[in-house]
Amino acid sequence: MSYQQLTSHYRTISHLDNVLGLLHWDMATMMPKGSAQARSAEATTLKSICHGLKTKPDIEDWIDAAKGESLGDWDKANLREIEREYNQANALPTDLVAAMSDAISACEIAWLKARPANDFQSLCPYLERVFELVREQAHVLSDRSGLTQYDALLDLYEPGYSSAQLDTVFAELESFLPNLVGEIIEHQERMGPIVKPSGPFDIEIQKQLGRDLMDALGFNFDHGRLDVSAHPFCGGSPDDVRITTRYTADDFMQSIMGVIHETGHALYERGLPNSFRGQPVGRARSMGIHESQSLLMEMQACRSPEFVSYLAPRLRAAFGATGPGWSTGEMLRSYLEVRRGLIRVDADEATYPLHVILRYRLEKALLSGDLALADLPSAWNDGMRELVGIVPETDTNGCMQDIHWHMGSVGYFPTYTLGALNAAQLFEQAVTDIPSIPDEIGQGNFSGLVTWVRESVHQKGSLLSPNDLMVSATGRPLDPSVFKRHIKRRYLEQ
Amino acid sequence: MSYQQLTSHYRTISHLDNVLGLLHWDMATMMPKGSAQARSAEATTLKSICHGLKTKPDIEDWIDAAKGESLGDWDKANLREIEREYNQANALPTDLVAAMSDAISACEIAWLKARPANDFQSLCPYLERVFELVREQAHVLSDRSGLTQYDALLDLYEPGYSSAQLDTVFAELESFLPNLVGEIIEHQERMGPIVKPSGPFDIEIQKQLGRDLMDALGFNFDHGRLDVSAHPFCGGSPDDVRITTRYTADDFMQSIMGVIHETGHALYERGLPNSFRGQPVGRARSMGIHESQSLLMEMQACRSPEFVSYLAPRLRAAFGATGPGWSTGEMLRSYLEVRRGLIRVDADEATYPLHVILRYRLEKALLSGDLALADLPSAWNDGMRELVGIVPETDTNGCMQDIHWHMGSVGYFPTYTLGALNAAQLFEQAVTDIPSIPDEIGQGNFSGLVTWVRESVHQKGSLLSPNDLMVSATGRPLDPSVFKRHIKRRYLEQ
Repeated sequence: MSYQQLTSHYRTISHLDNVLGLLHWDMATMMPKGSAQARSAEATTLKSICHGLKTKPDIEDWIDAAKGESLGDWDKANLREIEREYNQANALPTDLVAAMSDAISACEIAWLKARPANDFQSLCPYLERVFELVREQAHVLSDRSGLTQYDALLDLYEPGYSSAQLDTVFAELESFLPNLVGEIIEHQERMGPIVKPSGPFDIEIQKQLGRDLMDALGFNFDHGRLDVSAHPFCGGSPDDVRITTRYTADDFMQSIMGVIHETGHALYERGLPNSFRGQPVGRARSMGIHESQSLLMEMQACRSPEFVSYLAPRLRAAFGATGPGWSTGEMLRSYLEVRRGLIRVDADEATYPLHVILRYRLEKALLSGDLALADLPSAWNDGMRELVGIVPETDTNGCMQDIHWHMGSVGYFPTYTLGALNAAQLFEQAVTDIPSIPDEIGQGNFSGLVTWVRESVHQKGSLLSPNDLMVSATGRPLDPSVFKRHIKRRYLEQ
Repeated sequence: MSYQQLTSHYRTISHLDNVLGLLHWDMATMMPKGSAQARSAEATTLKSICHGLKTKPDIEDWIDAAKGESLGDWDKANLREIEREYNQANALPTDLVAAMSDAISACEIAWLKARPANDFQSLCPYLERVFELVREQAHVLSDRSGLTQYDALLDLYEPGYSSAQLDTVFAELESFLPNLVGEIIEHQERMGPIVKPSGPFDIEIQKQLGRDLMDALGFNFDHGRLDVSAHPFCGGSPDDVRITTRYTADDFMQSIMGVIHETGHALYERGLPNSFRGQPVGRARSMGIHESQSLLMEMQACRSPEFVSYLAPRLRAAFGATGPGWSTGEMLRSYLEVRRGLIRVDADEATYPLHVILRYRLEKALLSGDLALADLPSAWNDGMRELVGIVPETDTNGCMQDIHWHMGSVGYFPTYTLGALNAAQLFEQAVTDIPSIPDEIGQGNFSGLVTWVRESVHQKGSLLSPNDLMVSATGRPLDPSVFKRHIKRRYLEQ
């Protein structure tokens, strides 16, 4: 049966993808620095073998034959995802892929130098080359799929999503969020300055706290690890999920919430349907759904008053600390502080979407050519003034802060905000279905919430499109008004 | 050029072998236990891809064509090693390889149960099956190579070595070693009981001591790591050498010498010729040469009075300890204690070859069928009585103690003793060439010794056969009288 040849072939591919996941994890956590060059050559070899398997010409024949075979719903969806993956792997001509890889390497190196030096001009030709090739990529993908060029890129990260949908959703956010942020900041200022615990905070204690929270959230250490890396991530594979965080003795709040965020990603990977392990339909659905799972844990569940009332006494006990910054009320204020900041990755949940909308506008304009790269810094600053109400003094903290464009990722930024909106909607639905969830979370008990997301999201793998998954889980498509309600309630009404 | 096609192909293979090395390291050190099944499937996929590359039919044509090309000495030797590797990879029919893999898996599982239960009978059919397939393997290899069946297996681990040579070398050892061991034990007893430091010994201190010694020996932590595993090993790859050890709070001597032993292996891997990285001629020569590098460091250099006089005060300082067991003289006695023991891996350097000779005799007899497996326990006990002068009360501590036969490794045991003899001869030559080496070691300075072995052994890769390598490094072939001289001098004359 051709379908079986396909599943066997994609199981092999998934094994190699998992090995690549492990190589990447090792590189970021364990590898001695002198081994980078050798490791990079090894990973390139493995990737090229993997690419060979993904573009094997037999696949097309197997797909055609499998379409005539009698398949159940999951297998049909698997066939659809296989075809999608095959088309993506085959879409780009080899010389474009190679040119892209070279241009990205050069641009990343240039970015690593130019960013700290606040030297956008020296970066410009490298980034220009990357965008040139991204345009070519978008052109090819668009020709194959019939999608617009931007949508063809977006589809790589959020299948079935369109910029028309994004325009609607983001317009809605823009209509209330800038003003709402202003109101929240005023509201928080009226309550006086936030007193924060002061360090140093023992790193071993932070590690143990992180592990205890992972336990509470249901992370299975028989199938995963927690380690340290410069940039936190969730990697490995569904049967061996490896998350990382970073510690600083000045601040424990970052590592604690970082661990919870990555644990949300990890629970998703681990909860994917076991019977479709290694098959395209058994994978996580999209970046926007993945991010919803981390933000559901970090933002929705663990910055709630209920959870902070569980967490605060445990933090006091762990660090043996007392004083005004350690009261439950004050810790909640710390965890919910809203600021007009320059840096996306440091942004709170209220301002974060505004950073994303800026990038979405700019990357669309850069892709279409409506915005010249030389004009990016001023366009960035104008957008920051309008959306966030603050202007960076340097491009270092402005248009050069993120790595995404320099590595050719265009169409990725929106998925962060889709994740936040999905998370709000999923959490609201979970609490509607199981009203005891907030109280349970207040006791450090996540089993109700985790069971709900496992059934409603994790176990679905890639059976449904992101849109249909939201309908299946919450009864309706993505609705930004839930996020609005969440922000207003949490920041103005509590 | 066909030769270039070969080097490019074998570079690809080495990348995958290195990745497999990393997977194995991770499995033993980092992997959560629940991931074993998934990891095993991933490793199997990668091994099978690797096997496909190693048996690619084009290789034969490339080899034939390359033989007509004009090549330098190293490239000629590389071509010879490539042919050797290709022939080995192609020698065994696929169904024999698969049957072997199944039989070994089953036998290992049976062994893990039978050994602690002292139940050789239940193990017997599984081991019988493994030996049956090993005989078939030896038959096929022998037909291809023209070697005897045992030699065809030995050649997998020690290229060019023969059982005729082993018979001579082992006969020489048998002629003096059992009596010499008796003399040494009497000699040591006359000096009264050895006083040993008593624990517990902080494991963090042991770790730091191990790292300090690795530094002293010249281990480059920019290209390697030290971690913990149940069974110590040296793994990874030449640019990323990962050694492991194990710690117990009862005893630090084991972890310290274990680290030094594995560091000897690691220095070899790291010292292999950089210009032939990833090529068969650039690999470590053989198991017997590899073991010589660990034993040269552990036995020759680091159990010497010079080194112990360097080590002992550092141990006292690290553990903040005083007392009779901690004097330099008494620590040297501890490190040189000779005992008639049952367990090979715990044996001192004087009795170790006797354990190996027993296994060599038995595995030859089992392979040829001269010894029936049912008679193995009594043959084992007879041999132990004759060679080591002690008889195990259980098969657990007798013929079931080692995993090697259960995983189909026949012809491997002799390489441990070849390693010990090589080590004695190489060390003696190094000291002849650079007489200051013992004094330098007494100051914790290994640079002279490491430079010597790097030039004489490491940098040769697989350019020469093990025999020729010994001639090149020491001016003569393997000569067991050097080992005899070493043992007599160290244990009776000092």
